[in-house]
Amino acid sequence: MKRTALAMAIASAAAMAAQAGTVTTDGPDIVLKTKGGVEVKTADGNASFKLGGRFQLDYNDFDGVINSVPGKDGSDAFFRRARIELGGHYYDWGYYMSYNLTDSGSIDQMHTTYQGIGPLAQLTFGQQKENFGLEDTGSSKWITALERSMPANAFDTGNNIGVKLHGANDLVTYSVGVYREGIDQDNELDAAYTGRLVVRPMYGSDGLVHIGAGYTVRDGDFTDFNSRLGVRGGESGSSAGRVRTRYTGGAMGDEFEAWNLELAASFGPFHAMAEYFDGEISGAGGAEDIEADGYYVQGAWILTGETRRYKTDIAAFDSVKPSKSSGACEIFARYDELDLSGHSDPLIQEIGGDASTWTLGVIWYANELVKIALNYVHADTVEKIGSEDDGDAIVARIQFAF
Amino acid sequence: MKRTALAMAIASAAAMAAQAGTVTTDGPDIVLKTKGGVEVKTADGNASFKLGGRFQLDYNDFDGVINSVPGKDGSDAFFRRARIELGGHYYDWGYYMSYNLTDSGSIDQMHTTYQGIGPLAQLTFGQQKENFGLEDTGSSKWITALERSMPANAFDTGNNIGVKLHGANDLVTYSVGVYREGIDQDNELDAAYTGRLVVRPMYGSDGLVHIGAGYTVRDGDFTDFNSRLGVRGGESGSSAGRVRTRYTGGAMGDEFEAWNLELAASFGPFHAMAEYFDGEISGAGGAEDIEADGYYVQGAWILTGETRRYKTDIAAFDSVKPSKSSGACEIFARYDELDLSGHSDPLIQEIGGDASTWTLGVIWYANELVKIALNYVHADTVEKIGSEDDGDAIVARIQFAF
Amino acid sequence: MKRTALAMAIASAAAMAAQAGTVTTDGPDIVLKTKGGVEVKTADGNASFKLGGRFQLDYNDFDGVINSVPGKDGSDAFFRRARIELGGHYYDWGYYMSYNLTDSGSIDQMHTTYQGIGPLAQLTFGQQKENFGLEDTGSSKWITALERSMPANAFDTGNNIGVKLHGANDLVTYSVGVYREGIDQDNELDAAYTGRLVVRPMYGSDGLVHIGAGYTVRDGDFTDFNSRLGVRGGESGSSAGRVRTRYTGGAMGDEFEAWNLELAASFGPFHAMAEYFDGEISGAGGAEDIEADGYYVQGAWILTGETRRYKTDIAAFDSVKPSKSSGACEIFARYDELDLSGHSDPLIQEIGGDASTWTLGVIWYANELVKIALNYVHADTVEKIGSEDDGDAIVARIQFAF
Repeated sequence: MKRTALAMAIASAAAMAAQAGTVTTDGPDIVLKTKGGVEVKTADGNASFKLGGRFQLDYNDFDGVINSVPGKDGSDAFFRRARIELGGHYYDWGYYMSYNLTDSGSIDQMHTTYQGIGPLAQLTFGQQKENFGLEDTGSSKWITALERSMPANAFDTGNNIGVKLHGANDLVTYSVGVYREGIDQDNELDAAYTGRLVVRPMYGSDGLVHIGAGYTVRDGDFTDFNSRLGVRGGESGSSAGRVRTRYTGGAMGDEFEAWNLELAASFGPFHAMAEYFDGEISGAGGAEDIEADGYYVQGAWILTGETRRYKTDIAAFDSVKPSKSSGACEIFARYDELDLSGHSDPLIQEIGGDASTWTLGVIWYANELVKIALNYVHADTVEKIGSEDDGDAIVARIQFAF
Repeated sequence: MKRTALAMAIASAAAMAAQAGTVTTDGPDIVLKTKGGVEVKTADGNASFKLGGRFQLDYNDFDGVINSVPGKDGSDAFFRRARIELGGHYYDWGYYMSYNLTDSGSIDQMHTTYQGIGPLAQLTFGQQKENFGLEDTGSSKWITALERSMPANAFDTGNNIGVKLHGANDLVTYSVGVYREGIDQDNELDAAYTGRLVVRPMYGSDGLVHIGAGYTVRDGDFTDFNSRLGVRGGESGSSAGRVRTRYTGGAMGDEFEAWNLELAASFGPFHAMAEYFDGEISGAGGAEDIEADGYYVQGAWILTGETRRYKTDIAAFDSVKPSKSSGACEIFARYDELDLSGHSDPLIQEIGGDASTWTLGVIWYANELVKIALNYVHADTVEKIGSEDDGDAIVARIQFAF
Repeated sequence: MKRTALAMAIASAAAMAAQAGTVTTDGPDIVLKTKGGVEVKTADGNASFKLGGRFQLDYNDFDGVINSVPGKDGSDAFFRRARIELGGHYYDWGYYMSYNLTDSGSIDQMHTTYQGIGPLAQLTFGQQKENFGLEDTGSSKWITALERSMPANAFDTGNNIGVKLHGANDLVTYSVGVYREGIDQDNELDAAYTGRLVVRPMYGSDGLVHIGAGYTVRDGDFTDFNSRLGVRGGESGSSAGRVRTRYTGGAMGDEFEAWNLELAASFGPFHAMAEYFDGEISGAGGAEDIEADGYYVQGAWILTGETRRYKTDIAAFDSVKPSKSSGACEIFARYDELDLSGHSDPLIQEIGGDASTWTLGVIWYANELVKIALNYVHADTVEKIGSEDDGDAIVARIQFAF
């Protein structure tokens, strides 16, 4: 009987071979995966490759102060983001390339990381996030609301070329880096320095408590603080109204400095987060500084019971993975405020001055790759912008991320 | 002896293992393929990924009314199209991303399709073809002539962001959708509505008979109907002459409406197809409407005996797959006409008025990925354009599509 | 005991199957690889696919004549190159697509090669290198210095659309081609013709001796010879100073002609190479011709003992593959000169006239994918440019090429 079993095993292997060709490799053993994209890695952990991408298809309908054309209704359908993403590693060096397909193409991120020291000290070279703020550091695929809060936008450092030292364990995540802010009229580099520290007094299956702070200081020419009012408005973003405080009449700032505080907690299907930002642009040649501050608070509940993931390496929330084939459903509310008012220098123009928005939303994670979301936004400004001082919007998105 | 066979089987497996590393997966079984590109799918059908691309390298030589510089010979070598294409699915949601590499990059198509209802009712969200017309709905890789006919160009709806409900079985293919035409001065969306219905009284190994009709209506600002004369002319297309009828002096149209009829048949190596288009731009503020109509008829014969493929899901012809290693060879002829004449309003300018072209061609499908084609085009216009009212062209292409 | 061994073999195979899903194919057997990218080919050699990419992150610091702002220090951090690369083949037809991600995207190379005749006669159609000069023909990933020499830049033919016949064996490498230089005012193609021949009197494990010559002649409008002074300066390259000789006052050249000589040798860890270039732009309508010539000599030593690779198919040096896990280390020196002086026509303006640079560098090949290099450049010009006639620069690069 044993021999029969052996013969059957051989026969079935032979039958399979007759139907299907073999896939082998001429180097180390390989593990291959697909979940809409493709992932290849060697079993010895020395090499890997991954190809993925994302696109976010948005529909907006908005009025009042949210539309850049006062008194009119605006609407648009557009790709909020669309990217191809490649990554992998070879021995001690990892890489990541993310390319924007919108607006005729641009580099989103492109960097290589030396991982030879260990997870507590990694060096990333190239165009990357500076990791300033919780909402900004998290992936745009998995932020809770469809747009980040007004203060996160106003103080956004963007993705820049530079070098970042960073590391993390379960308790702490840190990053410090120096980045290219621009070049001056002599062709000399203007530099930015940014750091962030997050501690997690609690992190595990019981829940998460996250406390963080960040700081950035940047040389260069700066002319304003501004933010859209919680709605993108269209691919170029020019349809949407903005609050803004800026230098006029040739005045200019020559340094930008900002700090923030982060607080977040997650228990089972609930999470809450809040951030406070404060910063100023130093006026050059005697001009008054432009000052700004703002905050947001947000609470969310996954009705289907899943827990939102959290990544310690960047100290930010990540995806919701549905536990059932019918997907997962989350609701949330966010209130944010951005105060750009209070300047007396006649060379500083305030538009809107002080703004706040309420964002309410529901999200359906249809499966691990598909997220469908609907947000309602109500915006208020203290000063009228083109005869309007409030506005409402509906924003809908289908996201495919593989 | 049996034991010897077993031992040999084991030994040969062991020998293979010594030479070649294994390739496995840590999830569902996977099937991997390459034919110049790469395709990965799970054996359970729940996930897939495919990467491909295409490029079309053209050489044109043209004179007379076909050149935008009257009385001179024009010629160019350029990429007519070059794209990278990613697609796949995960459970009920498929996706497709096609990115133009020419002209410094742009999104060709990018969409996700909900396939959970079944092949008779699929919902596609994103930038996509509107499926108006047989020639336009078919892939640019597999249209018979190198350029689509003049009426197909003049009435081309383009690829737009929108939502399309579509379905097909062997008898019927339908699609209805709403799309973004643009945004108006208030930032409000201008919408387009397009539908198509195709029935196949005959479809199978005996042959194919295809009868179809389409309709589109579009809000927005419209200023002209135009088409090149069967020749692209160069990457930007600006080298080629055009027939055109347009508003001048600030006149404008505010609605575009068109319908078409399609007729096609395929029996063994032969196929024939014809389309008729009729449409108008409604003049705003009392301006006369601009009217246009046109048609083409085409016949083709694959000398090596293969049958051109046809896809029921989009109701359009597709590739020719050579049955021999020496490739397949096809010849064809097409006659088309586009009539933009007959307007009396002095604010409407007619250039060329009424045009027709003959296109004769031979195509060598060197293998499944490589198509090499030579077309001869003769164009006539009723009205002279820059002292010319006819012209001739040779167009050659090498296409690689993986 | 034998039976036990068999049973164990089956059992271990079964155990592996329980842990890991199978990866098979439904066509010919496949070999899969990863080394940061991915490579798939059929075992029968009829089809293949490869995806890779590269990015070069540079930091420059430069002064004097090297900065385009006289008397000031310049510096920048930027991507010198960033590309995604796809390639493969299907039966007799190969393809290669390389797309620039910098500067909002453009096609670097895109071509298909008919390989059916054999390695001594291949036909490449599409956008490709013209193969003029040793330094220019080699990959930008593996040139020794971070920037090619001034004469290689001044006489660079670029990547153009065309057809090239080329072939190689161990002794000889040749290429002849016709390319698109541009189109004239009538929309007619301006053509370029370029050829190159290399012979290797010695090639094998003992060493390499390479002797080559090239020639190019090009129709079209030409206005100047120019080159940066060994330093890129920034992504756009506009920060860096240039030597340049150009027509002014509406004068113009209508033909460009150049030839070069190449000499190279490699013995174990040492290589030396030198090129001489000579060319002229023929002045149209009686204007004086612009003449230019230049050369470089370079020597390099891989301290860790590896030999720089050399590709016979393009007759150019290629990568250094480290033999130890600590990587390989190379040092080099290069001297180059570009002479654009000696014109008497007042319509010809000489800026800098005659320039030379010394480039000294050290390169660490951290592993097969990662190259880290530091160059020092000293530049001299005979004529002052904006009050400067020499300058110094430090250029550092991290390259990831998968």
